[in-house]
Amino acid sequence: MVVSLSRRGDVEPFHAMDVLAGANRLIAQGKDVISMAVGQPSDPAPAIVREAAAAALKAGRIGYTDALGLAALRRAIAAHYGEHYGLDVAPERIAVTTGSSAAFNLAFLAMFDAGDRVAIAAPGYPAYRNIMAALGIEVVEIELEGAAYLHAEHLRAAHADKPLKGVLFASPANPTGAVIPADALKELVETADTLGIAVISDEIYHRLAYNAPDTTALAFGRDVTVINSFSKYYCMTGWRIGWMVLPQPLVRPVERIAQSLYISAPELSQVAAIEAFKATADLEAVKARYAWNRELLMKRLPELGFALAAPMDGAFYAFCDVSRLTNDSMAFAGRMLGEAHVAATPGRDFDLLQGHRTMRFSYAGSHDEIVEAVSRLERWLK
Amino acid sequence: MVVSLSRRGDVEPFHAMDVLAGANRLIAQGKDVISMAVGQPSDPAPAIVREAAAAALKAGRIGYTDALGLAALRRAIAAHYGEHYGLDVAPERIAVTTGSSAAFNLAFLAMFDAGDRVAIAAPGYPAYRNIMAALGIEVVEIELEGAAYLHAEHLRAAHADKPLKGVLFASPANPTGAVIPADALKELVETADTLGIAVISDEIYHRLAYNAPDTTALAFGRDVTVINSFSKYYCMTGWRIGWMVLPQPLVRPVERIAQSLYISAPELSQVAAIEAFKATADLEAVKARYAWNRELLMKRLPELGFALAAPMDGAFYAFCDVSRLTNDSMAFAGRMLGEAHVAATPGRDFDLLQGHRTMRFSYAGSHDEIVEAVSRLERWLK
Repeated sequence: MVVSLSRRGDVEPFHAMDVLAGANRLIAQGKDVISMAVGQPSDPAPAIVREAAAAALKAGRIGYTDALGLAALRRAIAAHYGEHYGLDVAPERIAVTTGSSAAFNLAFLAMFDAGDRVAIAAPGYPAYRNIMAALGIEVVEIELEGAAYLHAEHLRAAHADKPLKGVLFASPANPTGAVIPADALKELVETADTLGIAVISDEIYHRLAYNAPDTTALAFGRDVTVINSFSKYYCMTGWRIGWMVLPQPLVRPVERIAQSLYISAPELSQVAAIEAFKATADLEAVKARYAWNRELLMKRLPELGFALAAPMDGAFYAFCDVSRLTNDSMAFAGRMLGEAHVAATPGRDFDLLQGHRTMRFSYAGSHDEIVEAVSRLERWLK
Repeated sequence: MVVSLSRRGDVEPFHAMDVLAGANRLIAQGKDVISMAVGQPSDPAPAIVREAAAAALKAGRIGYTDALGLAALRRAIAAHYGEHYGLDVAPERIAVTTGSSAAFNLAFLAMFDAGDRVAIAAPGYPAYRNIMAALGIEVVEIELEGAAYLHAEHLRAAHADKPLKGVLFASPANPTGAVIPADALKELVETADTLGIAVISDEIYHRLAYNAPDTTALAFGRDVTVINSFSKYYCMTGWRIGWMVLPQPLVRPVERIAQSLYISAPELSQVAAIEAFKATADLEAVKARYAWNRELLMKRLPELGFALAAPMDGAFYAFCDVSRLTNDSMAFAGRMLGEAHVAATPGRDFDLLQGHRTMRFSYAGSHDEIVEAVSRLERWLK
C-alpha cells in the first residue's frame, strides 16, 4: 500500500530528544542515568501552581479556551511586563501558546512565507532551524565563530549579502548561556528596524541570568515579537505552556492560525500558570541551586577536559569545547551515556558545522546529581 | 518599526472558535449563553482519568516525555486496537500527539510537500484546509453535493482531473455526522491504494456512531495513517491529547518533526489518558445522553425550520440546511448568539462554497441545555 514520505520530513532530528529517549530506555532497564541532556528543571512546578491545577481538576471539565488563551492568564502575563520590566503591555497583545514550540511555529507562519530569508545564530536552539525548514523558510545561519552573541554587525553583513526578512535571537541563549548586554541588544533591535528586518526575541531564559538584570527586546522596539514560556524559570516543561507578545497587526493572524493548528493551549496548564507569577520566593530558591551547580561546573568541567566555550552568564547550560576529548561529539555523547550513564547533548543539535567539537550540559538538575555526574565523568575519563 | 505579515497568515478564521470567543465575551458580561458551537462534551473527563492526573500532580515533576509519547500510553492505545477492532497494532506505530490538531499537522508535514495535491470532502473540518494551506499544500475540495460521504468514485474523478498525492476523510464526519459504511470504506481505501494515493483517516468520532459498529480504515490498509484523539468520546478536549497510528516508514519522520515542533504532548494529559480506556461504563452513559439529545434534535430542528442536511449517524452534530431561514448563515449565527443567546457554527467553516446555506449544532451538551436551546430558538424565530 502507498506510503507518502515528504522531502521536508527529512529534517535533522533534535538529538537532545533522541538522547532523552535513549536515556529513558536505559532507565526502563533499571540503569541509574543522570540526564544533563534536556533543558528541564528537576523541580516540580511551584506548589501554588499545582494546587490551582488540582482545584481545576476537581471543579469539572477541562475544555477548549479561546485560541489566544484564558483572559485571566493574558492579563497576568501582561501585568508581568509591568512588574518585571516596567513596560506597559496590553493583554490583547498576549497570545498564550502550547509551549514556546507553538509560539515559534505561529510566529514563523504568521510572519514569513516560504522562501523568505530569516537569520539565526549558530550555535542556537535546533528547533528554530528545523521548524523553519519544515515551513519552507530559508534559514540563514550566522556562525558566531567565537563571538558570545549576535551583534548588529553580524546582521548588517548577512543582510548585505542578501536581504533578510527576519532575525531571531535569544538572550540568555541556548546552548551557550550567553546574555546580550542591554546596549548591544538596543543596537541589534534598532539596526534590524533600520534595515527593515522583523525581530523575534526568544526570552525563554529570562529570570535566569546570573550577572545582570533582564532586558527585553520590547524595551527597544514595540513591534518586536517576544516569545517566552513557563517551562524554564517557572519549572513547567511538561505542562506545555508559553506565550508571545505580539505587535498589534500580528494578533489576528496569529489567532486565526492558532485556531486551526492548536485550537487552544491545555486549559489545566493555563489555569495553573496564572499562579506562577506569585511563586517568586520558591522559584528564586530553585535559581539559587542552579547558581550553585553553575559554580561547581565552571570549575570542574574545564579540569576534566571540557573547556568552556561560552561564558555561562544565564540559562542553565554549560556549553563546552570537547575537542581535547573527541572529534565526534555525537559518538562521544553516545559512549558517555552507555558507559558513564551521564546524558548530555552533542553540539550538532546547535551547530551543523562546528557541533562535532562541542557538547551541552544542562545543570537544571539537583546539586547531588550534578556532583555525582562530575564524579562519574572523572572516573569514566580515566 | 517593521512588522512582517506573511501571505499564509491570511487563512480563513475557524469561525466556531470566533463564535466561542464571542460567547465567552457575553458570558463574561453575565449573559446565560448556551454553546452549541464547539464540538466539546459538557462532561468532565471520567473520574478515573482525573484521579490519575491528580496523583501525578502530587507525585512531582510534570516533564517532557519522549516525543512520540509515554511508552505506557502507546501500549494502551495499541491494545485498544486489539480490543475494539480486533487488529494487531505494534505500540511502536503509535505517536501520541497534542490533540488531533498536532496529529494533522505532523501527518501533513511528514507526508506532503508544498504543492502536493491532497483531497478532502466539502463540507469538512476546517482545520484540514487551513493547516494544509498554511503548509503550502494544494487542497482539493471535493464538493459532496448532497452525497453523505466521499465515495471511491469521487476520488477517481478528482484524481483523473489532476493526480492526487493524498486523501483525507473522516467517519463519523464533522460537520455532517455521516458514517461511511464498511463496504464503501473498503472500496475507498482500496481505490486510493490502486491509484497511488496516500490515505489519512480521521477517526476522532469513533465510538460515537448510533447505528453501526466502528470500522477503522486500518482494517483495509495497513499503511493508512489513522488520526484519533481523547477529546470527543473520552471527554478530554482541553487536555490536548490525541494519537496517530502510522505506517512503519512514517514513524521516524513524524518523531523527528514532533521533536522540534512539539517536543512532547503534555505529560499530565498523557498519564491521565492511559486510564481512559478503562472508563467505558462512564463514557457509554455520556453517549446515551448524546443519543437522547439527538432524538430530540432530529425531531425539533426540522420543525423549527432547520432542515437536516445529513443523517446524524454519528459524532454529536446536527448539520442543517438553513436556507428557509436565511441566505447568510454567518450573519444569522451572529444574530442568534446576540439575541437568542444560542451559539452555533455557521456553515462557512465547513464549506466555503455552500456554507452560507448551512449551520452546525453540537449536541454534546447536557440534555437540559439542549431542551432550553430549542425553546429559545422557537421563541426567537417567532
